[in-house]
Amino acid sequence: MSTPTDTPLTLFWSPGACSFVPHVALCETGLKHDLVLAKVGHMTKEFEAINPKRRVPVLIMGSEVITEMAAVLTAIATAAPDSHIFGKTPLEKIRVYEWLNYLSTTAHGQAIAEIWRTERFTNNPEIYPQLRAKGYETMREIFAHIESKFKAANITEFAVGNSYTAADGFLSVLYLWTARFTEVTIDIDNEYPVYAAYVKMMLQRTAFIEARRIHKL
Amino acid sequence: MSTPTDTPLTLFWSPGACSFVPHVALCETGLKHDLVLAKVGHMTKEFEAINPKRRVPVLIMGSEVITEMAAVLTAIATAAPDSHIFGKTPLEKIRVYEWLNYLSTTAHGQAIAEIWRTERFTNNPEIYPQLRAKGYETMREIFAHIESKFKAANITEFAVGNSYTAADGFLSVLYLWTARFTEVTIDIDNEYPVYAAYVKMMLQRTAFIEARRIHKL
Repeated sequence: MSTPTDTPLTLFWSPGACSFVPHVALCETGLKHDLVLAKVGHMTKEFEAINPKRRVPVLIMGSEVITEMAAVLTAIATAAPDSHIFGKTPLEKIRVYEWLNYLSTTAHGQAIAEIWRTERFTNNPEIYPQLRAKGYETMREIFAHIESKFKAANITEFAVGNSYTAADGFLSVLYLWTARFTEVTIDIDNEYPVYAAYVKMMLQRTAFIEARRIHKL
Repeated sequence: MSTPTDTPLTLFWSPGACSFVPHVALCETGLKHDLVLAKVGHMTKEFEAINPKRRVPVLIMGSEVITEMAAVLTAIATAAPDSHIFGKTPLEKIRVYEWLNYLSTTAHGQAIAEIWRTERFTNNPEIYPQLRAKGYETMREIFAHIESKFKAANITEFAVGNSYTAADGFLSVLYLWTARFTEVTIDIDNEYPVYAAYVKMMLQRTAFIEARRIHKL
């Protein structure tokens, strides 16, 4: 990784998946990048050779294959240091990783996965409905937590500091995912209004509009 | 966060929990720190006021409350920049976050949580055994992945670069946790020998010995 900003970048993505988050980050930074489709549920042998974990996002940065959300976003930050996608101070950087870790573990890896990737948790399809029900319950707890944090910190525009960070992409995609739930309706706009107002403002940014168009989210 | 290295640090920990990882990191850096017990399953109202998510690790850094593994470790790195706990190059930093994200989501948040925190995934104790069984299955996949990565990169001593990083603590605690499984035996030493040899060398480090003594791991 000699001169990072000149290194070619390729993002493997799947429509509507969490690859939306680094996609937004790439658009926000203005970094030139290629997109390659690796559709969840229809991944090719070629993609499996690149990432045996069979997950998006994957970022190819020169000759390096980078997996895992926090690492892909860290790589994008390395390639575009002036974009401050991990904030502008050491404490803001800590806060961005804090949001990413919470959203990757409790929100995505636990609740959303129970709803949409139930097979990760059991080999018995008969109990899928019970697991999905718990996933929806956990989603409500997550939104309550986010709403409470946003209210306490008086957040209206950005989750960390006074400009876009990688946390904003992940916080926003939760809202878009929830709108796609088919079994349960969570009325974010009325139940979690501070968070809802923040997401609606975020979705007006050019990078989010562009990434939503491609991700069909 | 004025002069980070002078800021008092307090780590909330629980015996045998993932707070072992930042505990090792604090010992490796030599940073002065206080330890406060916040026992999983017996957390106090005082601790819940500090972290409503009711999880360890929590690091108090001056007046800042920092939650979530990757954020706590990033804070420790900020306080001890010369310790290089996220490696020595931008690429090494990316690789450490990659390990941490994988271990926090797939290993800890999915497999280990299914085994030891089954109540996160269902309200029905009758299906706990099915979920735990899937957790053990996922642990085997994780060890196979780690073994394969270690073999490919010829790793014997450190997971990233040529010195201790935060990834080493998390990779090692998986081995210690697996030794505590009561329902299933995973014979790491024979099935995943490259990984096992690495952990055994890691556990000889003073920081690991000290953290194991306190964590009773």
